[in-house]
Amino acid sequence: MSLPKYNTFLLPESQRDRINVVLVSPRNPLNIGAAARAMANFGFQRLKVVAPFAPIWREARSAVGAPELLRNAVESATLGEAVSDATLVVGTGTLTYRKAEQRVAPLMELVPLVARELAKGGRVAVIFGPEKHGLTREDLSYCHLLVEIPTDARQPSMNLGQAVAVCLYELAARGLQAEVSTEMATPGPSATSAVTSGRLELLAGVIEETMLAAGYSPRGMQPANRHDMRLLLRRLGLSVHDTRRILGLFRRILWRIKRTSNREDNSH
Amino acid sequence: MSLPKYNTFLLPESQRDRINVVLVSPRNPLNIGAAARAMANFGFQRLKVVAPFAPIWREARSAVGAPELLRNAVESATLGEAVSDATLVVGTGTLTYRKAEQRVAPLMELVPLVARELAKGGRVAVIFGPEKHGLTREDLSYCHLLVEIPTDARQPSMNLGQAVAVCLYELAARGLQAEVSTEMATPGPSATSAVTSGRLELLAGVIEETMLAAGYSPRGMQPANRHDMRLLLRRLGLSVHDTRRILGLFRRILWRIKRTSNREDNSH
Repeated sequence: MSLPKYNTFLLPESQRDRINVVLVSPRNPLNIGAAARAMANFGFQRLKVVAPFAPIWREARSAVGAPELLRNAVESATLGEAVSDATLVVGTGTLTYRKAEQRVAPLMELVPLVARELAKGGRVAVIFGPEKHGLTREDLSYCHLLVEIPTDARQPSMNLGQAVAVCLYELAARGLQAEVSTEMATPGPSATSAVTSGRLELLAGVIEETMLAAGYSPRGMQPANRHDMRLLLRRLGLSVHDTRRILGLFRRILWRIKRTSNREDNSH
Repeated sequence: MSLPKYNTFLLPESQRDRINVVLVSPRNPLNIGAAARAMANFGFQRLKVVAPFAPIWREARSAVGAPELLRNAVESATLGEAVSDATLVVGTGTLTYRKAEQRVAPLMELVPLVARELAKGGRVAVIFGPEKHGLTREDLSYCHLLVEIPTDARQPSMNLGQAVAVCLYELAARGLQAEVSTEMATPGPSATSAVTSGRLELLAGVIEETMLAAGYSPRGMQPANRHDMRLLLRRLGLSVHDTRRILGLFRRILWRIKRTSNREDNSH
């Protein structure tokens, strides 16, 4: 009996390579190893780790049998940096202790969204929070979407390595089906290209600078404004062209405000 | 924002309760704990453990935070005993080192088969082998079906706890969709009721005894014959009525052979 070739059931490698897994401050080397093993099982190569606890991270990386992708993992100081090249940022977790500020979907609805993003030529980041408390409100403000693995209400919280395995199974093994239906639904390559998280942050930064320069709100409100702006920009579904235009506008406003204030300074 | 109630995405509890998870000789208490946690996450309560290594099993059961289902787990000496009440026995694993003797399907095709079995009023057992080598050829002979989680050919072998999580996610979260489509496809309750593994074993035993009594094959062939018979009986898709009829036939044959041999013995 000839065996089925299971790689034929998985999303093509060229697409899996545009999906990053991001672990935020993992605390347990066994969980880091388990997450990396699940990635290797489903053929995902790109791991990023945000602000890991140094001794734990060293231990996990140098463990006997650690897959190569763990040794090649990219470290970042902040989540913003880790997802800067992503055009779709997906948070994972449960909402047991917090309120969502963006779209929430069960894991079974993720695949078509990811397929559409990959079809546009985008990059996807799937983010897993620390074991104890999951992603913070600040972390979630970088996410376009929050997915939840549907679990039993009596024991909703999953182990990190198992949650990674379930999410990657869904993306790798169910992704192919969605890919086929996206191909059928889309007549040609999409006209809109995808906007990276880094570009949205650049835009948010210029808007924030403008708010400051314009004396828009008291200094104490700045963190809240930044947070709301991040969420808003992700909700809008901007194209690259849109961001270029808005960026141009705010740079112009900023320049204008600064010139005016310089003149006012000079006139004293 | 009101949160979606994720239990509404899971297969109903009355159906999850007719799915058993069976761990064959697990070697690592952490894996036993992880398997139990995944069961609790997806709301499966019935765990059976076959021939566990006693000190490891004690350790896993008494671990701090061990879910109740682990303390309630049923121990069996043999796999045959553990699956005797199941009408659909599903093995899991990869075929890297062995050749399948029954139907093989990727995990994504399991759900409709399980849904059909549950709709008939049957019971399903999903079996996971020991960490090192997986299910043996003997173990697999109890299975109607072998499912494989599609993995990357470079790292096909999954960690036990993660494999359990992925399979149960698929059954619990994808099961509901299949259930709905089965309901639509089936006009009423199915006329054929399901045959338990224990009943098939009873039948196999009587047939084997008949083979022996009839001098069907040399003693050295008996294990191979038993193995092939187990596979054959599972492939046939017998109804309870069929098994009753065949059992009756073989009992009659057996009685006849034995009476004849007694006579022959007496005639000496």
